[in-house]
Amino acid sequence: MALTHGGDTVGFYLEYGYEPLDFSANCNPFGPPEGVVRAVGLAAAAIDAYPDPLCRKLCAALAQHEGVIPGQILCGNGSADLIDRLVYSRKPRIAVITDPAFSEYERALRTTDCRIIHHPLEKIDGYAVTQSILRRLTPDVDMLFLCNPNNPTGLTIDPQLLNLIIDTCIRSKILLVLDECFNGFLDDPEAHTCKARIKDCPELLILKAFTKLYGMAGVRLGYCLSSSAPLLTAMQSAGQPWAVSSLAQAAGLAALTEYDYVEHSRNLIRTERAYLSLELKALHMDVTESEANYIFFCTDLPDLTANMRKKGILIRNCSSYPGLSEGCYRVAVRTHEENERLITALAVCAAGKV
Amino acid sequence: MALTHGGDTVGFYLEYGYEPLDFSANCNPFGPPEGVVRAVGLAAAAIDAYPDPLCRKLCAALAQHEGVIPGQILCGNGSADLIDRLVYSRKPRIAVITDPAFSEYERALRTTDCRIIHHPLEKIDGYAVTQSILRRLTPDVDMLFLCNPNNPTGLTIDPQLLNLIIDTCIRSKILLVLDECFNGFLDDPEAHTCKARIKDCPELLILKAFTKLYGMAGVRLGYCLSSSAPLLTAMQSAGQPWAVSSLAQAAGLAALTEYDYVEHSRNLIRTERAYLSLELKALHMDVTESEANYIFFCTDLPDLTANMRKKGILIRNCSSYPGLSEGCYRVAVRTHEENERLITALAVCAAGKV
Repeated sequence: MALTHGGDTVGFYLEYGYEPLDFSANCNPFGPPEGVVRAVGLAAAAIDAYPDPLCRKLCAALAQHEGVIPGQILCGNGSADLIDRLVYSRKPRIAVITDPAFSEYERALRTTDCRIIHHPLEKIDGYAVTQSILRRLTPDVDMLFLCNPNNPTGLTIDPQLLNLIIDTCIRSKILLVLDECFNGFLDDPEAHTCKARIKDCPELLILKAFTKLYGMAGVRLGYCLSSSAPLLTAMQSAGQPWAVSSLAQAAGLAALTEYDYVEHSRNLIRTERAYLSLELKALHMDVTESEANYIFFCTDLPDLTANMRKKGILIRNCSSYPGLSEGCYRVAVRTHEENERLITALAVCAAGKV
Repeated sequence: MALTHGGDTVGFYLEYGYEPLDFSANCNPFGPPEGVVRAVGLAAAAIDAYPDPLCRKLCAALAQHEGVIPGQILCGNGSADLIDRLVYSRKPRIAVITDPAFSEYERALRTTDCRIIHHPLEKIDGYAVTQSILRRLTPDVDMLFLCNPNNPTGLTIDPQLLNLIIDTCIRSKILLVLDECFNGFLDDPEAHTCKARIKDCPELLILKAFTKLYGMAGVRLGYCLSSSAPLLTAMQSAGQPWAVSSLAQAAGLAALTEYDYVEHSRNLIRTERAYLSLELKALHMDVTESEANYIFFCTDLPDLTANMRKKGILIRNCSSYPGLSEGCYRVAVRTHEENERLITALAVCAAGKV
């Protein structure tokens, strides 16, 4: 299988014999909170029991955290598991995705006989979602995937436009999958989440993950919010009952108490995103104004991924994203010292000294 | 969602406020090996990295363990994940399953438009798979699921008959899914595994799991063996890339070094299965001659599951299995002290003193 996503630190290690500095995956640069690591260690002693298929304790804690009722939550083996369950249970005939967007939407849709409509986000618009998407939302469409902030660009959708999109989806009976997995890294998450709208829009499904915000991609834990009980029940039946390990459930419960960690992470990302953005521009990179914990840029420097890899640094080559061409990259926002190493290495590449 | 499987210790705890003695799930009564618990604890510190989608280290170790090449292995989030991937990628039109059998085969098949042919295992045959199954294996069938030893009965399929079944599947171009998840608990696992046949039968897929043998159901880790690279590649693409957590990969690597643990477990199961079987018969239960780490029996005692539950003991009511009726039960084989508690409680129920 080709590895199209970032984060292949194992592949690097097998080739070079040491750990790379990974800017290709978008996880919290602080690493997992100590409380989460401790919770996993404690839960390890009881792994002989099957996990709770209903994730009852975790859903109760999440309901309080998100301000919804437990029955409006479904947990999954990462948000990718929930995307699969959604597609398998609904089997949409026509779905709209943006180009670019997180590639797992298309991967899941391709396992069914779905017709995929690609809505291009134009470079001239700075890759933003604009009103032009409304024209795509005709009643023959079954499903729309939007990522907010988008991956790989880091751009949010204008809240007014997003409300218009939701209204149109209600009218056209389109299930709107709103991926808010990176919402927690925004300067003001509350200003951008649409969870207040799940009440009056049963066909709105919001995807969230512990993966990135709590630095626990290795654990696999995501969840979704919806006010449609039939939708969540169908998704639950579309896969095995024990998708979420007991270790993940314990990790999630511990993570939800980490308020300070999240606050510190958000502050770091805010400062370092500004730093990285400035430095990338100083290197004449074409930088998109990201609001998330990663930055998207374009450059015509040759062989950038390979040259950075030789320096022990992984960056995400985005040319495999539909709608993007050669020369597009994404880097995570990490700690200041790590970001300096990234910029130093990029500067060497930019000076043609590789 | 209704919980049809055993092992719902969380539900019991929420109702009664203490942990039950769980005979309803079939895991190793020794609990997880210490080395596995330690490995999970160590891996917890590095959960911020995405898991290796290809499980390269684990596949290399498994290849050596199973005597196959790494390319003949695909790991999954428990064997149930692999069942889903198989069904989603192949989309069989007609599939044969036995009644009774592990219910996840049918659950997965029902998410597609597959016609399911139920092959009854008759009480008069002691629920054994007999030659009568060969007549079902006509060329219009796409897929056959067999569980060896079967769940819930604990019976193995006669090796000669199994070879005949494989030959028939080759001739009729039927993909044979052979679930060997409980093979490791048999007195002589090598005498019953069909892994030697994957070479000459690319349409043979063998399912295996760490779940039961290593007492790590909470971790979620299964794998399958096949000599068909296209089949394994299609299964890999039929779901997310990161299904197997990094904790599960670390746990699996550690488990494969636990030779003594497996040997001790097998010895315990052999002795205690014989003890439990005798005691159940002494209580006038109709006991099937299980070869695995669980025992299937029938009785007309009323409300047995509920009465045992009141005593803090979970047993598996098998009346929800297709092909079985009220009064069928499955209990795990556990440690001697635990088995004595089971028998004592059952004796009270049998004496009508509940």
